[in-house]
Amino acid sequence: MELWQLGVGDIVGLVTGGQVSPVEVVRALLRRIESLEPDVQAWAALDPEGALADAERVAAGRTRGATQPGSLASVPFGVKDIFWTKGLRTAAGSRVLADFVPQEDATTVKRLRRADAVILGKLHTAEFAGADPPPTRNAWNPEHTPGGSSSGSAVAVATGMVPAALGTQTGGSVLRPAAYNGVVGLKPSYGLVSCFGVIPAAWSFDTVGVFARSVQDAALVLDVLAGYDANDPVTVRRPRVRYSRDALDGAPPRLGVVRDFFWERCDASARREMEQATARLSRAGATLEEVRLPACFSRIHAEHRLINDSEIAAYHEEQFAKSDDLYGPKIAGRVRAGLSHPATAYARALRERPAVIAEMLKLTTGVDALLTPATPTPAPQGRSSTGDPAFQTPWSYCGFPSVALPSGTSESGLPLGVQLVAARWSDRRLLRVARWCEAALDFRSRPPCWSAAYG
Amino acid sequence: MELWQLGVGDIVGLVTGGQVSPVEVVRALLRRIESLEPDVQAWAALDPEGALADAERVAAGRTRGATQPGSLASVPFGVKDIFWTKGLRTAAGSRVLADFVPQEDATTVKRLRRADAVILGKLHTAEFAGADPPPTRNAWNPEHTPGGSSSGSAVAVATGMVPAALGTQTGGSVLRPAAYNGVVGLKPSYGLVSCFGVIPAAWSFDTVGVFARSVQDAALVLDVLAGYDANDPVTVRRPRVRYSRDALDGAPPRLGVVRDFFWERCDASARREMEQATARLSRAGATLEEVRLPACFSRIHAEHRLINDSEIAAYHEEQFAKSDDLYGPKIAGRVRAGLSHPATAYARALRERPAVIAEMLKLTTGVDALLTPATPTPAPQGRSSTGDPAFQTPWSYCGFPSVALPSGTSESGLPLGVQLVAARWSDRRLLRVARWCEAALDFRSRPPCWSAAYG
Repeated sequence: MELWQLGVGDIVGLVTGGQVSPVEVVRALLRRIESLEPDVQAWAALDPEGALADAERVAAGRTRGATQPGSLASVPFGVKDIFWTKGLRTAAGSRVLADFVPQEDATTVKRLRRADAVILGKLHTAEFAGADPPPTRNAWNPEHTPGGSSSGSAVAVATGMVPAALGTQTGGSVLRPAAYNGVVGLKPSYGLVSCFGVIPAAWSFDTVGVFARSVQDAALVLDVLAGYDANDPVTVRRPRVRYSRDALDGAPPRLGVVRDFFWERCDASARREMEQATARLSRAGATLEEVRLPACFSRIHAEHRLINDSEIAAYHEEQFAKSDDLYGPKIAGRVRAGLSHPATAYARALRERPAVIAEMLKLTTGVDALLTPATPTPAPQGRSSTGDPAFQTPWSYCGFPSVALPSGTSESGLPLGVQLVAARWSDRRLLRVARWCEAALDFRSRPPCWSAAYG
Repeated sequence: MELWQLGVGDIVGLVTGGQVSPVEVVRALLRRIESLEPDVQAWAALDPEGALADAERVAAGRTRGATQPGSLASVPFGVKDIFWTKGLRTAAGSRVLADFVPQEDATTVKRLRRADAVILGKLHTAEFAGADPPPTRNAWNPEHTPGGSSSGSAVAVATGMVPAALGTQTGGSVLRPAAYNGVVGLKPSYGLVSCFGVIPAAWSFDTVGVFARSVQDAALVLDVLAGYDANDPVTVRRPRVRYSRDALDGAPPRLGVVRDFFWERCDASARREMEQATARLSRAGATLEEVRLPACFSRIHAEHRLINDSEIAAYHEEQFAKSDDLYGPKIAGRVRAGLSHPATAYARALRERPAVIAEMLKLTTGVDALLTPATPTPAPQGRSSTGDPAFQTPWSYCGFPSVALPSGTSESGLPLGVQLVAARWSDRRLLRVARWCEAALDFRSRPPCWSAAYG
């Protein structure tokens, strides 16, 4: 096994056991990036010197025996280019911020560093985490979209450039690209992870998420990210949970299958994959029962859009008035739509949201998680669109945690997967269910660049 | 002592001790109302039959010995006419709702009834809890405003028509009328008491409050009102506190005196009263230290107004489009202002609020409560305005609990008082401090209608 193929837990184990040095790990991944980056275009900025220096510091701390290495000892990370990184350009895929170098790390970046993770650089994002796509290619087929807005994060993890990466989801920006690239995408409960130092899209929904190649790796990262932050008023003080400490639970889960809307919107390949995936889960012992969406579901996409556009416009209004020519067409469309909304419509949308969420919450009663297809199709051809976030938006609106798991590939050789969803703050249970489903689905395919024959 | 002069705790003691019957209490207060109502105009609707029937039920329950009487056994209440009362008209001082009879009680009304309180009727409110005044007269001088918007609630308690009443505060609608009428006004922490079934003004600030003639009486009522309600998403699950069980604490409090803004805006009588009140508190042993407002304070009134008007307009928009002629000039002005605001301005105001609150919170560090004058002047002459809420608005904006305590009277014979404020969720400490200050201030004056010679 090559070093670049190792997961988060593998690296931590080898490094803390002294079998591999932090610098070796970082060098191996920098080489991997060097060889693939021209093809996939995942990175907005790389910091090889900084990363190697950090790896040396981790190594030195360890060899000195001064302290135990952190829980993510020398695990290389990439972070979406909307997370502030001290001294490293954070352009958010935008010409507006082309020269923006933050003076401080985002809280999540700080937490990664404190756990001895090593930040290799910044990953391409759709402009301002919207829908104007970056140059990034799908890990499985360069003619297809990688999805967005966390495009680089998904592709970097899928191609073996990093074992884990940070992204964000406001509509469908973590789970969709995860599914399009065949990796695990985790969007925790709204408010579980600080958004301080993350350039906002729409703060009523913005959630930091994790890309990894296994549920356990995502849980190891969540252990470090989760928790109250005085700088983010959305976070709350809650008892600490070690998400990675839950062993694979023997008891098969009870899954609420959401066919309404979700199966209807699927193309033939996605529907076929869903049938196969549910059959495998069922054979492995899961109880699958159909749950029916409440009437209010039909309002969610429009309400999400109204709140989303209003907040995007609230953030960009001043800059947009000065230089709307610096904005891509899709984000500009969202800003213009948001500027047209009256306060009253936005106020009512926010006020009605808790009642809609309360209705949606009932879906989760009596099941361990909800199960839907992750996306209505595999990654669409072409790179002008980042694909359809419609399967993620409802859960972003509700603030419910969700996980995308790859489950198979389409006839065209693109990955497809499932989405698991739980009630807000049930992240621990969701990850337990996801671990179980991951084992039952047993998806082992990797994109072509994993083959020794590639390139 | 006449029955109508008794406080909440007195009535509960006498009724549960069997010295007075619930029906006697209710009859005494109905007689008191009958004799004074033509002069003060506190009531929008009275329900003598319902109240007497309720009193008989409480009495019967007790004589049957079936259960202990509730903690507010047969305590007569009035509630502001924006609280839903099942089967009893709830017009909110508005022509729009002239015929509205709710099918359900507000959560707070339900809780009062469950504690065996008896609702005598509905108290006049400024139209939709705004600033178009009801016919209510100040308890101390009919030529002066009673304040608003909970005008009837303050006056009914001040004149001895009920020992306690419910009101609401969005800007300054509990503490201001309490101060103008020389009674105790309590606005708990935002989110401590359910607003379900209360016609909203601006839900980011709307808070149910209590009028009583002593801090302990207000605490007895808060015991019953406070707590999570699944129907109000603003309420949260928190450990139960018995606010009335804190004995008068021997230790004198440390008070943060806010002179900036508050003393500057006072007229001569209010400033003189404040000097006397602080002198008395100091002599009694309180530590008074001046605290300075942060720079962001200067934004609060405008931000409050923006959020307030946007939410008022969001609630009234549809009705207002159909029949703006049914709205009074002041509430119509608020609706029109709100309709003119873009979503972006409102979104930014909401988003920036937590940081402003965090700055304001620092004022409370190291002191038990903040101390300001309750109002910049005694109740102004004339009844076209309900007076100036500027001393309450900042704390409504912050969601901090606050108490108005009468402390003296002006040369013109009108009451003046102080305002105590604590950090959000520090209601218990605030009430403890308020009890101490109440004893130290030792205000015993009553309006002219308390004199045997009156009328």
